[in-house]
Amino acid sequence: MDPTQEEIRRDVRDAIKGVVAVVDRREFVRRGREGEHLDDWWSTMADLGLLGIGVPEDLDGSGGGISGPVAVMEALSEAGTPAVLYLLTSFARTAIIRHGTEEQRRRWVAPTVTAEVRLCFAITEADAGTNSFKMQTFAEEDGDHYVLNGEKVFISAADDATHAMVVARTTRLSESADKRVGLSVFVVPLDAAGLDLQQMRIDLHSPERQFVLHLQDVEVPRENLIGERDQGLRVMFDALNPERLLVAAWAIGLGQHALQRGVDYARERAPFGTPIGSYQGVQHPLARARAHLDAARLMMYHACAQFDRDDEAGAYANMAKLLASEAANAAADAVIQTFGGSAFDADSDITTLWPMIRLLRIAPVNNEMILNYISERVLNLPKSY
Amino acid sequence: MDPTQEEIRRDVRDAIKGVVAVVDRREFVRRGREGEHLDDWWSTMADLGLLGIGVPEDLDGSGGGISGPVAVMEALSEAGTPAVLYLLTSFARTAIIRHGTEEQRRRWVAPTVTAEVRLCFAITEADAGTNSFKMQTFAEEDGDHYVLNGEKVFISAADDATHAMVVARTTRLSESADKRVGLSVFVVPLDAAGLDLQQMRIDLHSPERQFVLHLQDVEVPRENLIGERDQGLRVMFDALNPERLLVAAWAIGLGQHALQRGVDYARERAPFGTPIGSYQGVQHPLARARAHLDAARLMMYHACAQFDRDDEAGAYANMAKLLASEAANAAADAVIQTFGGSAFDADSDITTLWPMIRLLRIAPVNNEMILNYISERVLNLPKSY
Amino acid sequence: MDPTQEEIRRDVRDAIKGVVAVVDRREFVRRGREGEHLDDWWSTMADLGLLGIGVPEDLDGSGGGISGPVAVMEALSEAGTPAVLYLLTSFARTAIIRHGTEEQRRRWVAPTVTAEVRLCFAITEADAGTNSFKMQTFAEEDGDHYVLNGEKVFISAADDATHAMVVARTTRLSESADKRVGLSVFVVPLDAAGLDLQQMRIDLHSPERQFVLHLQDVEVPRENLIGERDQGLRVMFDALNPERLLVAAWAIGLGQHALQRGVDYARERAPFGTPIGSYQGVQHPLARARAHLDAARLMMYHACAQFDRDDEAGAYANMAKLLASEAANAAADAVIQTFGGSAFDADSDITTLWPMIRLLRIAPVNNEMILNYISERVLNLPKSY
Amino acid sequence: MDPTQEEIRRDVRDAIKGVVAVVDRREFVRRGREGEHLDDWWSTMADLGLLGIGVPEDLDGSGGGISGPVAVMEALSEAGTPAVLYLLTSFARTAIIRHGTEEQRRRWVAPTVTAEVRLCFAITEADAGTNSFKMQTFAEEDGDHYVLNGEKVFISAADDATHAMVVARTTRLSESADKRVGLSVFVVPLDAAGLDLQQMRIDLHSPERQFVLHLQDVEVPRENLIGERDQGLRVMFDALNPERLLVAAWAIGLGQHALQRGVDYARERAPFGTPIGSYQGVQHPLARARAHLDAARLMMYHACAQFDRDDEAGAYANMAKLLASEAANAAADAVIQTFGGSAFDADSDITTLWPMIRLLRIAPVNNEMILNYISERVLNLPKSY
Repeated sequence: MDPTQEEIRRDVRDAIKGVVAVVDRREFVRRGREGEHLDDWWSTMADLGLLGIGVPEDLDGSGGGISGPVAVMEALSEAGTPAVLYLLTSFARTAIIRHGTEEQRRRWVAPTVTAEVRLCFAITEADAGTNSFKMQTFAEEDGDHYVLNGEKVFISAADDATHAMVVARTTRLSESADKRVGLSVFVVPLDAAGLDLQQMRIDLHSPERQFVLHLQDVEVPRENLIGERDQGLRVMFDALNPERLLVAAWAIGLGQHALQRGVDYARERAPFGTPIGSYQGVQHPLARARAHLDAARLMMYHACAQFDRDDEAGAYANMAKLLASEAANAAADAVIQTFGGSAFDADSDITTLWPMIRLLRIAPVNNEMILNYISERVLNLPKSY
Repeated sequence: MDPTQEEIRRDVRDAIKGVVAVVDRREFVRRGREGEHLDDWWSTMADLGLLGIGVPEDLDGSGGGISGPVAVMEALSEAGTPAVLYLLTSFARTAIIRHGTEEQRRRWVAPTVTAEVRLCFAITEADAGTNSFKMQTFAEEDGDHYVLNGEKVFISAADDATHAMVVARTTRLSESADKRVGLSVFVVPLDAAGLDLQQMRIDLHSPERQFVLHLQDVEVPRENLIGERDQGLRVMFDALNPERLLVAAWAIGLGQHALQRGVDYARERAPFGTPIGSYQGVQHPLARARAHLDAARLMMYHACAQFDRDDEAGAYANMAKLLASEAANAAADAVIQTFGGSAFDADSDITTLWPMIRLLRIAPVNNEMILNYISERVLNLPKSY
Repeated sequence: MDPTQEEIRRDVRDAIKGVVAVVDRREFVRRGREGEHLDDWWSTMADLGLLGIGVPEDLDGSGGGISGPVAVMEALSEAGTPAVLYLLTSFARTAIIRHGTEEQRRRWVAPTVTAEVRLCFAITEADAGTNSFKMQTFAEEDGDHYVLNGEKVFISAADDATHAMVVARTTRLSESADKRVGLSVFVVPLDAAGLDLQQMRIDLHSPERQFVLHLQDVEVPRENLIGERDQGLRVMFDALNPERLLVAAWAIGLGQHALQRGVDYARERAPFGTPIGSYQGVQHPLARARAHLDAARLMMYHACAQFDRDDEAGAYANMAKLLASEAANAAADAVIQTFGGSAFDADSDITTLWPMIRLLRIAPVNNEMILNYISERVLNLPKSY
Repeated sequence: MDPTQEEIRRDVRDAIKGVVAVVDRREFVRRGREGEHLDDWWSTMADLGLLGIGVPEDLDGSGGGISGPVAVMEALSEAGTPAVLYLLTSFARTAIIRHGTEEQRRRWVAPTVTAEVRLCFAITEADAGTNSFKMQTFAEEDGDHYVLNGEKVFISAADDATHAMVVARTTRLSESADKRVGLSVFVVPLDAAGLDLQQMRIDLHSPERQFVLHLQDVEVPRENLIGERDQGLRVMFDALNPERLLVAAWAIGLGQHALQRGVDYARERAPFGTPIGSYQGVQHPLARARAHLDAARLMMYHACAQFDRDDEAGAYANMAKLLASEAANAAADAVIQTFGGSAFDADSDITTLWPMIRLLRIAPVNNEMILNYISERVLNLPKSY
């Protein structure tokens, strides 16, 4: 991390304190439990100028690049309040900034600075899983609009978003010479007719929820198509590295949050007279997790810097996601073991941290797929699946 | 495992099918979610003769020894329906069988065969943790009874039990020449005046719950003292190995349950055309978990056999708990990764398995303490804490 | 492990002391360094009756079964003196006992009791690796004998053996309808004309060496064919489980040897005043290794018992090899870390233990192939390679 | 890593090719086996200007800082030719640059640029181990010189060095109020009377060897004392972070060297028809090792940058050593498993890589001590030993 980036990170961490004053970890979990939303949180993020970070100045932001949003996501997560819709909006708008028309950028990027636009992201389908080529959602062109039909799953925070960025087929797989051609990306308002949300039974102890998004004859004007028709994969690929990096930030922040809680407890808890933090069986796993979190963070910001100066960032972005999610899980595991039985008492809010941290070894892409990526793209080994 | 033990295990697995017909995994989780209890389950267990396993014939059982109850606990857990009150009753009654009077054995052991007596176990206190010597609960002798005051935590299934086996000080630590002297063990009816239960906020996705047990001037007749006054540690030590073994069974069964679910899924799920179970990245962790579960099971039954013929069983019982809980966690981890995002959907009932499995690396004694035990007692290394 | 087996193991351990009196660990390593052989060791093994263990009584042995030789191999390894030619002879003679004629059993099995026959084993070829079907060595039938041509690698102790059990093609792969048909097994005297040994540059710190075995027009009489022509795979499969079990014993014994050395050192070494064995960072890895070694041993003897009463033993034999080799490696790693820099000083004889222990995760079959076996045969998952 | 540092690294890697043209991996191992030294290697290093990297310009170097020597050490190691005397000289001269007089810097730093001075380092003693305070070597002041007596162990490349930097007590521990006071640092010519080297039996498959250094009444002029008498600890502490970083470079380079060999083999080897590199059981461990090596490298260069601009570098330097050595070991382990039995054939030069890589989890300080450091200094946990 170069000194400039270090400074950005410090500034962001300071600014986030204002947001945490509104929704801290305890409040975040409480809202999750009681079904309350984050409206005041979003307005605070906007008021403090945090939503403009990563948005180019001509779109009302304070400057582009992914380093800033990554620092925001890390700080939010370290406070124990990771709002995934912030992550999704940051990542989805990158696709619009890079591939959208001027009009599209004004309509859907600039208003993210004030939270008037909040973008969720709809690509996954139940049967396709990690194999996006198999998706069935189809957008039929019909005059000046497209008609979308299909079903997307694991759509986070869809009820808090204003729009969904939806990936759909515009040419059927069976009719494509090249399977990579035929996908298109649309911005779909969440109040569109025929669009329906059904909450999934997933508890991440967060105010944000996951949904199945049903699309039945949803009409979307042609001007909501981002990039060229059938070339959606290219649009998405440009957003893939930012996504990996924001997810790495999510993991590192949460891992650091958990770790700090474990360390604090290990300094106090002393059933045998001396704090358990003085036993190597307790302290070494915590120390090891710290080293891995710090290494993953350096890799993450290194990839951010590469990405922001248009250097190749894919290898490091993928590795950062892999290492960050594993380090966060190691941290959480050590902290649970440190707390012992108390970790399972909801009042301690320790095992409540687990589902989200565990999910990050799987979402948005599982670590086995990242190992496949490193094997093929970095090590030049043959494809394994 | 010798052939006889193998046969017992097979018979028990067959018999358990009758219990699972009443409460299967789905029903077990549903009851947990909706706050329903296991009364019909207990009567079925009794009707099928499963509660008599491990109880000497003169106490209306079908024969003593720990191998039987361990096989029962393993089979229940493998079905995904581990009732911890069965485990606690099996382990607590061992103490009464070994240290109780004939009268006590008739009052509290024989009726476990019909489920009329169900014993929970109250030793842990918030400040003492794994260091039982630090406990504060005190039983003051007063004529023909004792008066108990104190607070016990993590008391599983206390609202489903008829009695609690309570460990309390009868001589204050400050007045004991030897810290190991001064504890006593009482059988306390759960409807005793002054005894109060407060549910803890712990969700193990089970119909059984955890409680804080408050004892305020609870009067317990002298005949409810098991063994000699001040010699409670000896009473408990005899029950420690059975506890370890039953917990190992709990872990192995649950691990095997999770594993089977993961294997079934890996055979079906095929986003890239071939089942994901054909990828070594998916299948090897499942295979490795299987090997570790099988090894832990052999160790568990070996220790059971040693215990049942009064050979030294401590080392293997402790190792079995260590290895079983770690193997079960490795299995669960591999299965979650196999299911991917779907693991987090409550309908898949996969991450719902996690809290209980994770707890077993900690409860009833954390694996670090077991490593300390192996270091000191098996390897003759100096004490580390 | 049932009490009888426990007793056999104890008796064998006692008897081995007489062998170790002739060649102890220090002497074993010294001979390895100075190129001296084990002739007196073999005669001691014979004199003490240890070579007759596992040989049926009608063949001058003290009784068949694999449990005995496994106990011998474990005890030799635990003393730090594993002679692999003992392992190879024990495993190869099983094939002759099961598939040989009465004449063959008298010629090559009975004399193993006196060490007059010592069998090495030649199956691996450089290009075929773990895929035995690809082997090129060919035995051309020519009147009353076969003419062998080919090259075998990694042949342990070939210069100490009297005969090699050689697996060769008798029908070319291209001419076989079923690839599993066409292999045959021969007993070849090592002084046969055309047979040549070339020492490989492998240092396992043992008096035994590895060789490339060149076969150029080696004539072998027809009566040296074990079992039926072209059915060699069946002959070998029967010997596969004994091999896995003997290798597990090798690993467990060596692991236990290393562990004991580490524990002894950890009790003495005290740079900061207290023995390093009191630090959990040192003692926990040693304790964990002990638990895994003990579990692997129980699995190994369980599989032995299954094998000896003709029950299915494949799954447990494979798992025992997997777990034993991994536990031994974990033990060695912990011990090296315990010794610190001194581990690398040849006088401490610690890193000298490593190559052989490390090899056991690979030889005679690598653990990935065993995970494949468990996946396919035990978990019924699809083939991965 | 910022772009400047990336560039330095690239330049160094290019320059190292000239050195590898003289001594490549094969030659390096051959010289180790046959007892030949590296004289021509040293002159090539000097001729190519590589020895001046890290030496201030006023001392005939091309500029100070640790980033440069770290890049050199990484590149040498990646080529499989890590010369530890280069590492020792680079690290020891830092102490002289920072604490030496102008005269001392001219005498012992400037000539390192031409290889006329090569410094080995003597601190470790057999009984003291990692606890330097316990050292017994004593330097008695006597007029204008000191008289040194004692014994140092694990002195690498002492026979190739011109001088040893020796740490000795000048005040006995028993006479020190503060145990941190009383050590002093001396530059001792290796041809001094009374100084004697005895080769240790350590085989790292390198042309450099390890020695016990005996000092018997060795007279060293007062002007060879670096820094103040009794304040040697401060002198050493300044060199500690450079040492950690150079060792991290050693590990990362060797790990990368091993990894590349494994990847190359996995692309070619195909016993079942497809390259084994297409099996996830083979490729995933290689890919994971790559990610960990890359992360450790970023941490290493980040710490270098901090150190070179006089920011606090201790935490990251220690973590870099920890993570680098573990990543290198994971790489080596995966590569050995990839090669299978062939790894043990000396001609493949794979297990020959192991001893040096394994040593780096121990030397110059074991990873457990680093975990202690992180626990206490970074996490503020209590001391554990």
